[in-house]
Amino acid sequence: MNDLATRLAAVVGASNVEAGDAINEADTHDEALGVAPVVPAAVVHPASSGEVAELLTLATSLGVAVTARGSGTGLSGACTPVPGGIVVAFDRMAEIVEIDTDNHLVVVQPGVTLAQLDEALEPLGLVYPVFPGEYSASIGGNINTNAGGMRAVKYGVTRHHVLGLEAVLATGEVLRTGGRVVKTSTGYDLTQLIIGSEGTLALVTEAVLRVYPRAPHGATVLAPFATLAQVTAAVPRVVGSGVGPLILEYIDMLTMSAATAYVGLDLGIPSEIANAALAYLVVSLESTHTDRLDQDVASVAELLDELGAMDVYVLPPSAAASLIDAREKAFWVAKANNADDIVDIVVPRASMPEFMASVQTIAEGSASWIAGCGHAGDGNVHLGVFQADPVVRRQVLVDLFRAGMDLGGMISGEHGLGTAKSGYFLELEDPAKIALMRRIKAAFDPNGILNPGTILNDPKADL
Amino acid sequence: MNDLATRLAAVVGASNVEAGDAINEADTHDEALGVAPVVPAAVVHPASSGEVAELLTLATSLGVAVTARGSGTGLSGACTPVPGGIVVAFDRMAEIVEIDTDNHLVVVQPGVTLAQLDEALEPLGLVYPVFPGEYSASIGGNINTNAGGMRAVKYGVTRHHVLGLEAVLATGEVLRTGGRVVKTSTGYDLTQLIIGSEGTLALVTEAVLRVYPRAPHGATVLAPFATLAQVTAAVPRVVGSGVGPLILEYIDMLTMSAATAYVGLDLGIPSEIANAALAYLVVSLESTHTDRLDQDVASVAELLDELGAMDVYVLPPSAAASLIDAREKAFWVAKANNADDIVDIVVPRASMPEFMASVQTIAEGSASWIAGCGHAGDGNVHLGVFQADPVVRRQVLVDLFRAGMDLGGMISGEHGLGTAKSGYFLELEDPAKIALMRRIKAAFDPNGILNPGTILNDPKADL
Repeated sequence: MNDLATRLAAVVGASNVEAGDAINEADTHDEALGVAPVVPAAVVHPASSGEVAELLTLATSLGVAVTARGSGTGLSGACTPVPGGIVVAFDRMAEIVEIDTDNHLVVVQPGVTLAQLDEALEPLGLVYPVFPGEYSASIGGNINTNAGGMRAVKYGVTRHHVLGLEAVLATGEVLRTGGRVVKTSTGYDLTQLIIGSEGTLALVTEAVLRVYPRAPHGATVLAPFATLAQVTAAVPRVVGSGVGPLILEYIDMLTMSAATAYVGLDLGIPSEIANAALAYLVVSLESTHTDRLDQDVASVAELLDELGAMDVYVLPPSAAASLIDAREKAFWVAKANNADDIVDIVVPRASMPEFMASVQTIAEGSASWIAGCGHAGDGNVHLGVFQADPVVRRQVLVDLFRAGMDLGGMISGEHGLGTAKSGYFLELEDPAKIALMRRIKAAFDPNGILNPGTILNDPKADL
Repeated sequence: MNDLATRLAAVVGASNVEAGDAINEADTHDEALGVAPVVPAAVVHPASSGEVAELLTLATSLGVAVTARGSGTGLSGACTPVPGGIVVAFDRMAEIVEIDTDNHLVVVQPGVTLAQLDEALEPLGLVYPVFPGEYSASIGGNINTNAGGMRAVKYGVTRHHVLGLEAVLATGEVLRTGGRVVKTSTGYDLTQLIIGSEGTLALVTEAVLRVYPRAPHGATVLAPFATLAQVTAAVPRVVGSGVGPLILEYIDMLTMSAATAYVGLDLGIPSEIANAALAYLVVSLESTHTDRLDQDVASVAELLDELGAMDVYVLPPSAAASLIDAREKAFWVAKANNADDIVDIVVPRASMPEFMASVQTIAEGSASWIAGCGHAGDGNVHLGVFQADPVVRRQVLVDLFRAGMDLGGMISGEHGLGTAKSGYFLELEDPAKIALMRRIKAAFDPNGILNPGTILNDPKADL
């Protein structure tokens, strides 16, 4: 054990620190494409906010960088370690502290996974509605990226469900932000500021989350369309109908074919339709009453027919679950097909046709191959970019981001900037906003030890 | 005109500046009880964000305090001017810039009132769902207090509907935060940080707001109960039923009697029930379908009966509208009855019975009279405090706030701290959080010219 590891062991116990060859390969990276793994000086596994505070006080005194790690399922490299730095892994802080059924809230530690939370809530008829497509993701990671996912069109994203946090500042103070209440106007909203800050402002050690009555009945409708433009144009009409979809996704032909094959799903779509469909719309509905669900399914089917769907299928439950699973695996499909990068640009939902036209122009102009799917109800477009030349690829991403921003969109809807996209952010965003964000960062973390390289990509030279 | 007014007139034109005797009395205060009016050096009415930027650059160079003013309907003194300072009034920036029906969003200037926005949206079948009870309130004021109101139990509060802002820093930079998108994970969320900051971080000059399909059918159920504890205990059961109420309010006997008299409403409740009811629950429902509404009304009525309601009344539309109007007038009733102060503490909704028991103990122990009503679905309790002795009253408020905070609640659910409650906040809140908020304030407003005295109650000596 090196000297740093010995000092860390004094805080958490020797069995909860790894250094040198003992460091697991899995702890050197997340799932971002094109981000090189980094071996840190040590990986440490605290068991309490008190230990986290001691670790951060020590790191500040030594000027050592600290990177928080949840389940490592991130897609932007935000938990990539810093050379010489410490990884604080939250796998030992994975307790559901409290389920308060009267107030419809839970208190959880950051290492709790979405699967773990759902398993605890399901028997109580409750649901935490954020499902970003990876059930092994941790709540801590979800908070730090403001995770969204397929159900955001109905329930909103992580920031809409976090009522309060316990968080530790780089200087070791343990703060409690927010409360157990669904509304507040009591000073600056530190909870909201920490959400989505990707481990750069504070380490989250506990969270109070809203949960909701679990709707007992659900159905999924699948509609193939002759063109992607027809699908994206249908989206505002479905939202505007007031039916309140739980899920509203588009999947392009290539992604549908690859993703269903990946999970071994045969939807039984006649080949003459499958061959002519360039894109699909998936609409899931849920309800407290079966008769309402049937009525809503019928009205959505009728609307999709009016909007030019080639056909409308109401999927049996098992096929619906498999299709949602296939959609969730789209990233893995892109990865398996050797995508060079992925983006999750978000644009106004009605601007998707215009944005997708720009995507096609950018793809053709750079001889790249760009395909994907998206949380259509939110205008959140997930694209795999296949372009082997790193210089050309960089320009493709700049052009894609700029096209989205010109429509009132933003670089990332839910993946975050991490280390992978922060360079683009700094290049494309208003310098006055960047400067303000740097001042906010300094207000939380004056020595810049928390997750350097992420979001603001601050120089790590003096760490 | 004094020298300052002359320099302001050079920015906005002489007809848009008042100084000295020309200042309107209405511009010297808001509606907070017990906050003394202050005559500023000047009131200025800019017409554009460019003019606001010029005004702030000038104020920074002169070291003059700036207080933003919307409609002046606030209840915490946040727009009370600073002696020698400038009031920036947004009455000339009151344009609905755009209604985007496809993306379900609107772009508005800060002086737009809720009534004005609703009038524009109603014919389009859309609704901006935040109704804090005062339709003349401005969007700018709503954003700065994170306004809530009766419909928050279904739709959430202001911060859930603001997608992006144009805001001017004290140093004159004009920023655009967020976008036209419903989700983002692209750097620190400046939009959320500015919301609820009561004019202390930046001046909002434009906002992008979400709007929603307007449910065409609604109904209101009124249930008298023998005790307040029964009413507050019923609240989590109604929320947990999954019926998704639009409005869920409690009104105590004294407030009900005074408020209905104030608006001249006779609900026709038999006198034997009216005399025995100590509190009322109001449940409003809305739906896309009349049959669903009828079914939901029946199930809520059945549930309230099970929970011990003395009777359940489904109100005819005109009586329902009058009752909601009476509830919205509760503040004016308290004021007309010479309440000495009001509070809007928020606690976990299931903790209301326990909190209300503490309220009674505090009232009895201090020989004060405390009555009110509340957004029960959100645990947001509005109380009028009748206690003429300022020293005793101050202690009563401290005790009330502490009782709420001990339950996981916060000082204000929607009114904000302003100048009226900031002293309590500084006394009761964790000093490490206050210090962090001061550093955030300095990151936005290094010279402290924006709304000194509000939230952090910074010394104004050097202004």
